[in-house]
Amino acid sequence: MSDHFFQPVSGMDLPRFAGIPTFMRLPHLPRGDARWADVDVGIIGVPWDSGTTNRPGPRHGPRQLRDASTMIRAEHGVSGVRPFEAMNCADLGDVGPNPADIQDSMQRITAFYKDVIAAGILPLTAGGDHLSSLPILRAVAEKAPVGMIHFDSHTDLFHSYFDGTMYTHGTPFRRACEEGLLDPKRVIQIGIRGTQYDSEDRDFAKAEGIRIVPIEEFHARGPEDVMAEAREIAGTGATYLSYDIDFVDPTFAPGTGTPEVGGPNSYQALQVVRGLSGVNIVGADLVEVSPPFDASGGTAFLGVSIMFEMLCQIAAGRG
Amino acid sequence: MSDHFFQPVSGMDLPRFAGIPTFMRLPHLPRGDARWADVDVGIIGVPWDSGTTNRPGPRHGPRQLRDASTMIRAEHGVSGVRPFEAMNCADLGDVGPNPADIQDSMQRITAFYKDVIAAGILPLTAGGDHLSSLPILRAVAEKAPVGMIHFDSHTDLFHSYFDGTMYTHGTPFRRACEEGLLDPKRVIQIGIRGTQYDSEDRDFAKAEGIRIVPIEEFHARGPEDVMAEAREIAGTGATYLSYDIDFVDPTFAPGTGTPEVGGPNSYQALQVVRGLSGVNIVGADLVEVSPPFDASGGTAFLGVSIMFEMLCQIAAGRG
Amino acid sequence: MSDHFFQPVSGMDLPRFAGIPTFMRLPHLPRGDARWADVDVGIIGVPWDSGTTNRPGPRHGPRQLRDASTMIRAEHGVSGVRPFEAMNCADLGDVGPNPADIQDSMQRITAFYKDVIAAGILPLTAGGDHLSSLPILRAVAEKAPVGMIHFDSHTDLFHSYFDGTMYTHGTPFRRACEEGLLDPKRVIQIGIRGTQYDSEDRDFAKAEGIRIVPIEEFHARGPEDVMAEAREIAGTGATYLSYDIDFVDPTFAPGTGTPEVGGPNSYQALQVVRGLSGVNIVGADLVEVSPPFDASGGTAFLGVSIMFEMLCQIAAGRG
Amino acid sequence: MSDHFFQPVSGMDLPRFAGIPTFMRLPHLPRGDARWADVDVGIIGVPWDSGTTNRPGPRHGPRQLRDASTMIRAEHGVSGVRPFEAMNCADLGDVGPNPADIQDSMQRITAFYKDVIAAGILPLTAGGDHLSSLPILRAVAEKAPVGMIHFDSHTDLFHSYFDGTMYTHGTPFRRACEEGLLDPKRVIQIGIRGTQYDSEDRDFAKAEGIRIVPIEEFHARGPEDVMAEAREIAGTGATYLSYDIDFVDPTFAPGTGTPEVGGPNSYQALQVVRGLSGVNIVGADLVEVSPPFDASGGTAFLGVSIMFEMLCQIAAGRG
Amino acid sequence: MSDHFFQPVSGMDLPRFAGIPTFMRLPHLPRGDARWADVDVGIIGVPWDSGTTNRPGPRHGPRQLRDASTMIRAEHGVSGVRPFEAMNCADLGDVGPNPADIQDSMQRITAFYKDVIAAGILPLTAGGDHLSSLPILRAVAEKAPVGMIHFDSHTDLFHSYFDGTMYTHGTPFRRACEEGLLDPKRVIQIGIRGTQYDSEDRDFAKAEGIRIVPIEEFHARGPEDVMAEAREIAGTGATYLSYDIDFVDPTFAPGTGTPEVGGPNSYQALQVVRGLSGVNIVGADLVEVSPPFDASGGTAFLGVSIMFEMLCQIAAGRG
Amino acid sequence: MSDHFFQPVSGMDLPRFAGIPTFMRLPHLPRGDARWADVDVGIIGVPWDSGTTNRPGPRHGPRQLRDASTMIRAEHGVSGVRPFEAMNCADLGDVGPNPADIQDSMQRITAFYKDVIAAGILPLTAGGDHLSSLPILRAVAEKAPVGMIHFDSHTDLFHSYFDGTMYTHGTPFRRACEEGLLDPKRVIQIGIRGTQYDSEDRDFAKAEGIRIVPIEEFHARGPEDVMAEAREIAGTGATYLSYDIDFVDPTFAPGTGTPEVGGPNSYQALQVVRGLSGVNIVGADLVEVSPPFDASGGTAFLGVSIMFEMLCQIAAGRG
Repeated sequence: MSDHFFQPVSGMDLPRFAGIPTFMRLPHLPRGDARWADVDVGIIGVPWDSGTTNRPGPRHGPRQLRDASTMIRAEHGVSGVRPFEAMNCADLGDVGPNPADIQDSMQRITAFYKDVIAAGILPLTAGGDHLSSLPILRAVAEKAPVGMIHFDSHTDLFHSYFDGTMYTHGTPFRRACEEGLLDPKRVIQIGIRGTQYDSEDRDFAKAEGIRIVPIEEFHARGPEDVMAEAREIAGTGATYLSYDIDFVDPTFAPGTGTPEVGGPNSYQALQVVRGLSGVNIVGADLVEVSPPFDASGGTAFLGVSIMFEMLCQIAAGRG
Repeated sequence: MSDHFFQPVSGMDLPRFAGIPTFMRLPHLPRGDARWADVDVGIIGVPWDSGTTNRPGPRHGPRQLRDASTMIRAEHGVSGVRPFEAMNCADLGDVGPNPADIQDSMQRITAFYKDVIAAGILPLTAGGDHLSSLPILRAVAEKAPVGMIHFDSHTDLFHSYFDGTMYTHGTPFRRACEEGLLDPKRVIQIGIRGTQYDSEDRDFAKAEGIRIVPIEEFHARGPEDVMAEAREIAGTGATYLSYDIDFVDPTFAPGTGTPEVGGPNSYQALQVVRGLSGVNIVGADLVEVSPPFDASGGTAFLGVSIMFEMLCQIAAGRG
Repeated sequence: MSDHFFQPVSGMDLPRFAGIPTFMRLPHLPRGDARWADVDVGIIGVPWDSGTTNRPGPRHGPRQLRDASTMIRAEHGVSGVRPFEAMNCADLGDVGPNPADIQDSMQRITAFYKDVIAAGILPLTAGGDHLSSLPILRAVAEKAPVGMIHFDSHTDLFHSYFDGTMYTHGTPFRRACEEGLLDPKRVIQIGIRGTQYDSEDRDFAKAEGIRIVPIEEFHARGPEDVMAEAREIAGTGATYLSYDIDFVDPTFAPGTGTPEVGGPNSYQALQVVRGLSGVNIVGADLVEVSPPFDASGGTAFLGVSIMFEMLCQIAAGRG
Repeated sequence: MSDHFFQPVSGMDLPRFAGIPTFMRLPHLPRGDARWADVDVGIIGVPWDSGTTNRPGPRHGPRQLRDASTMIRAEHGVSGVRPFEAMNCADLGDVGPNPADIQDSMQRITAFYKDVIAAGILPLTAGGDHLSSLPILRAVAEKAPVGMIHFDSHTDLFHSYFDGTMYTHGTPFRRACEEGLLDPKRVIQIGIRGTQYDSEDRDFAKAEGIRIVPIEEFHARGPEDVMAEAREIAGTGATYLSYDIDFVDPTFAPGTGTPEVGGPNSYQALQVVRGLSGVNIVGADLVEVSPPFDASGGTAFLGVSIMFEMLCQIAAGRG
Repeated sequence: MSDHFFQPVSGMDLPRFAGIPTFMRLPHLPRGDARWADVDVGIIGVPWDSGTTNRPGPRHGPRQLRDASTMIRAEHGVSGVRPFEAMNCADLGDVGPNPADIQDSMQRITAFYKDVIAAGILPLTAGGDHLSSLPILRAVAEKAPVGMIHFDSHTDLFHSYFDGTMYTHGTPFRRACEEGLLDPKRVIQIGIRGTQYDSEDRDFAKAEGIRIVPIEEFHARGPEDVMAEAREIAGTGATYLSYDIDFVDPTFAPGTGTPEVGGPNSYQALQVVRGLSGVNIVGADLVEVSPPFDASGGTAFLGVSIMFEMLCQIAAGRG
Repeated sequence: MSDHFFQPVSGMDLPRFAGIPTFMRLPHLPRGDARWADVDVGIIGVPWDSGTTNRPGPRHGPRQLRDASTMIRAEHGVSGVRPFEAMNCADLGDVGPNPADIQDSMQRITAFYKDVIAAGILPLTAGGDHLSSLPILRAVAEKAPVGMIHFDSHTDLFHSYFDGTMYTHGTPFRRACEEGLLDPKRVIQIGIRGTQYDSEDRDFAKAEGIRIVPIEEFHARGPEDVMAEAREIAGTGATYLSYDIDFVDPTFAPGTGTPEVGGPNSYQALQVVRGLSGVNIVGADLVEVSPPFDASGGTAFLGVSIMFEMLCQIAAGRG
């Protein structure tokens, strides 16, 4: 049973609109806080979007996600899981990036996450654009490659952009494979769709053994069947979970930079996480929420609803 | 056949953007008008949201719903029902609330509805937050408890908020049960979802015999099967219909204060009303439309489309 | 294989937000350009909405559609079709309408399209309101009536509005039938829904042999089955494709003037076009995108995604 | 002293957000109502924008203006004038236009206003685009030409658009001069600015004797001095007041179709009306409020604040 | 010189979009924190709007103000004052209101502020609607009445609303006078304007000796002259500063519930605070910022810019 | 007299909403076009914002500015200057940046502008963030340092950010001084305001002899007096004009990343450019228009109105 200190403030006591917004209304324990020793799951903001090739904005994501997360209550409506009782959860604050220097930012992110891992904390990240996943994986998979269950409309497996630029939000998992952070045979990418430049990314996936589930297959088979396959691919090994909000149809998640129409609805967006039962999750992220493109906050609310589902899966896995 | 006086203005004669917006472009008969004697169904605005615990706004709902309702035409596209010919319908205006006094407002609402009931008019309400349903039920169920078919993402069955506050938009049906206005065995709540504080509300439902259909059951069984059960629970007795717009997924109905992702889409939002055939409806409401959170008016347009479906069900029941 | 001149600029070379936006980043060849001789498919803007009876705005559609179209890449994600390699495509610019004179505008549109047809170019139109289809058909079907596959929530088959006004966006296909531009036996209208004035339009359809698939039938049968019937009705003869964005549910396409709730989602919006395989398309339009009602551009992005699907069908048909 | 029947509903009795919105919360007396005989000033909506050459929308103006007008109280804050006590004011409803036929619409408008004039009612119009002023003047100035004080950023004195189109919102006062509705020597246009096509309109003004006060002169002299001149030009004869909301800087009034930066602020927007003391006003309009370009309603609120100032001037003139 | 602990985070070190937003990026010291003993000025959120008679929303104000305040830097651009070095400032968190019980909320607020006063902290409040000032004054002026410099477009001196409701955002200073919290002879209200119900509030002011500066006087005399008078009226006694954001023209501050056009611009909004030199400020508030009516956050940014000016005045007064 | 080829399309011929938007509806002559030889003034888009330290977005600026520029007509309303007749103007397209590599982007920009200068074309730039000015100055001032008249709320003279990052939108003119591109004695910065980190930038300015006119001085002296001083400082030498849209008050120009309240209004925003008479302008830019923060386009419309004023000054200087 979790420490009382780690219980979120209830909307029955303090109205949801009141109070300084931390993730899920959890205590804020900045880097260096002695209580990191007691934390099981740390929620971390990565306000960074320098890898974005088209419409920037995810640098503002963590703040809007924290705001929306004050709407989340303590108990899962379907499973009855109460993650904040099952585990000590905390808001570990934001990694401070350098918005004008990509390499410097990646080093800052990796350094922060190495501290998190060293403290025995499982990191749940609120991005940031998808390039964020690379410096995180450099910490999470420092000792051994991990598997990955990846929800997205894009593979993010391209070699480079604009005549040789290697680090953009379209390349993180190509780099992660090259750097030995991912075990491609244990990687599945779900929801891929939209118009394509060419097949370079999918050719790479095929060569490496990465499984791609395009959206038309997802719609034909349904979330449950696809997730059964995902669990099989991930197996029992350490697995990272990466969720790009543009996996969801842009009508349900307009606040993102590279939308592709024809995706899953908001119920399916939750269902796929509920299908992770038994997966050995060692880290997770929810990325590409871009507030300038959804001032209403609906995208962020869906984002934190997904993050809550992730927390429940992690809690159930530890139960 | 309805009186010509009660026919709505056609968009073929006067463009829809023209004219002072009454509900469905019906005649406006304020309280005290002698023609109440001829009215079968009265549409009433309850611009009130003092029971809202988080994001206020539904006090502005009736005006936006009236505006959107100018888009509604005379005939149902599927069934061919023409409700304004089958029944004399009118806009009875708004109940004037006291935005700074909850008890005073509830008394004003109940008094207004008692007049409506006394005139033999079936009330169709445009809210207002969900606490509005309580003072309405005090008039509608004054003589005997009624059954209820309730679409919502929340049960609204909590005991109290904020250290003992008994009247909020999270408590109306708890109060209605306690006051003997509802027959809990004839109550069904459909679409319940989202994170939960705890199970207090559902424990109460269980103890009282209220049937809850959570959203995952709704998605699994489909609207038609669920509505068959609803009809059975309601039976042939007097039944109230309460429709919180947050039953619908917030992408389809963003203009509301307490959204929960993963709900029904707009087609299902209509289908459930079409499944009410044969129910003995004695009053109905559509609540929690909050214009400040959807300036575009899309939520209100969905709201009045649902209200039109309700009218067609009422007309068919009288046919 | 298409001429290199006709290849769109890649987002890998020039970021998508850069450059003057032409349709799909294709070359702009205004009327009179000698290279029209080399064009297979011409994309044309018709910035005109004088036929709109309620909320105007589609006159701004072509510009927003061009802007959104810079997000489209070269290859279809499912079929692998690369339409810009299969055919020479170009942006032929906008027809200049007279916003204060309906007849003058229709003559200008027809004259422009006669030039396009004379040059052997297949026209793909970005509207504009739905009345635009009438002057286009006067050019496309000048020599012989054509069949039509029509996606819409309205039939647009009314006789007249406002005491005898014959040319509005609710009448184009009534006029087209009367003028012998359409072969009613080879016309199918899919997605019809919403409240109705009366049955005048559907009575006309029945009398003429036009097939109407209302939305409840569409939802019950599914897009694939409906499109099989559509292909059968269109047969092998010359067929025009007319796609009103209000066919799609307004949550997915809010930027339009006459929304009707309960329609298809964005995936189905693409699926129906994918179901056109084998149809002899001689012209196509995507109309009623109204930027003032969706400043975010999401509707336009869905619109150009549909237009890209159309291009792929045309390319496949020529393959 | 005004009849009690004609007193607006107070926000102290019924909250401002409640009730069906009529202009200033006055009684609604549609055309044909016997009580027209008692009305001194009639507020009329002209929901029409067919003369708009660029961005349409003012057809939605009257409804948004009515909504915003529920914020207006009974007494002028500076002068203490209580116009609704001084005169019997009423909302006479909207003129029903034909959105697809300019000539038909103008005839409908003129016919409506002839009835108003015949009833001895002074018309205060809420437009609508600026072409609306022409059919109104055809009624107001039927017997003799009137003077005009005109606030605008454009002269609206052009001969024609698009190769000979004579009736657009850029031509009404050219037509009004030609038709003998205006006495050009008693016309002043204040606030003219922005880039120009050429000097055709100003050459016409010069030739006819119309006085133009460009914005740089307005800013240099100040509203009081300019209005002194305006009063002198108008003299004691019958004078029409025409106020295009684009007179005001577009930051203060963004909801309009043809903005020109660098205009007066909102305080000056009121000051100029306060400077009309002693002018013999026989009719007035406030036009070009375009809701699709300001969903917030701020433009409409400024618009009705200006209309209230007009009412106070008219009341003072009758006092 | 202030404690280093109390220095705000610099945007040169951590980008402004990063980090959990506290007021001015100051340390968050919740009620009960031992370091209250070291605090000179405490910034407090009062997320409450139950006194709002028209458009609610200020309950969301403190969160948006905190977010916007991350844009504020350490030094005043004109005076060079560095308030966070001159005084220990902290974010004391939000008072938790009861959104469904006005009296309970007022007691909670007063209790919180009594603790603040008892700790020797000068309170700077971010509202909340204007009724918030009453329970604050009950703490601030507990021992003796205070003077007040009040910027607003309304007097908030009404007796009651809706048949006897005594506590709304239109009545706080009437109550404060009756309760002996304000010394009316030392009260000045600046910027009053807009339409009026009647003169009841101004009659009360006159009888009590409250000085009202209506907006036309403000515009005629200019901010400097008016503020000289304000300083004289306040004298050297303890003075409360109350700033309703609707003092500013609604174009500059649209996010508020009861806008009145024709007010000061944003530069004048700052100038009036700069004119407070020498005033003995014992507490201050900035109220009526309503995020639902300005999602862009511009109103909140103006609000925190004003709050920073207040801090600089307080610092200068202590210097 | 300008070549007919270089005349913009008139809104009298083609409605403003029609046609592919080039700057001012001028011909589009991409890099390499032979007609560059005939161009006097080239308008160039720099869609780039990698130097932005807070809220990105100006990369989308050129497209929105082009769109808004279709509202600009041929003649200046006050001076009667017709710049497109006086000079051959053209849209030279966008420089293609590399959004993920700052140094690469700066080299691309400088290379493009060297070509422009080599062709004898005076460049008028639509940014982009303010760092854009640095690579432009590297081309414009390649041979000799230039003077600069700079409108902004920030000096952009900082040494570095985030522990040594030298190239951000807060540093361009520090770098330009260090690189000998600017003659500091001939530089004036007008409108500086807002909270400050410290005085490092102003200390540098003082040491170098750069003249800073803070906003309170601007408001006190007025635009005309300040511009007289600016003309004197610039003298007769080659002078660059740099206009950050955040010079203007954010209410008038909300679409920007680093707003500071209390700035000039839109009329003053034009007046300062009109005060440039006689200045020897060798290049100009309008930067920091950020569409994601003003979807309405009002900021862009003000931006292009300013650019038109610049064109008229350049034309007058050549006359």
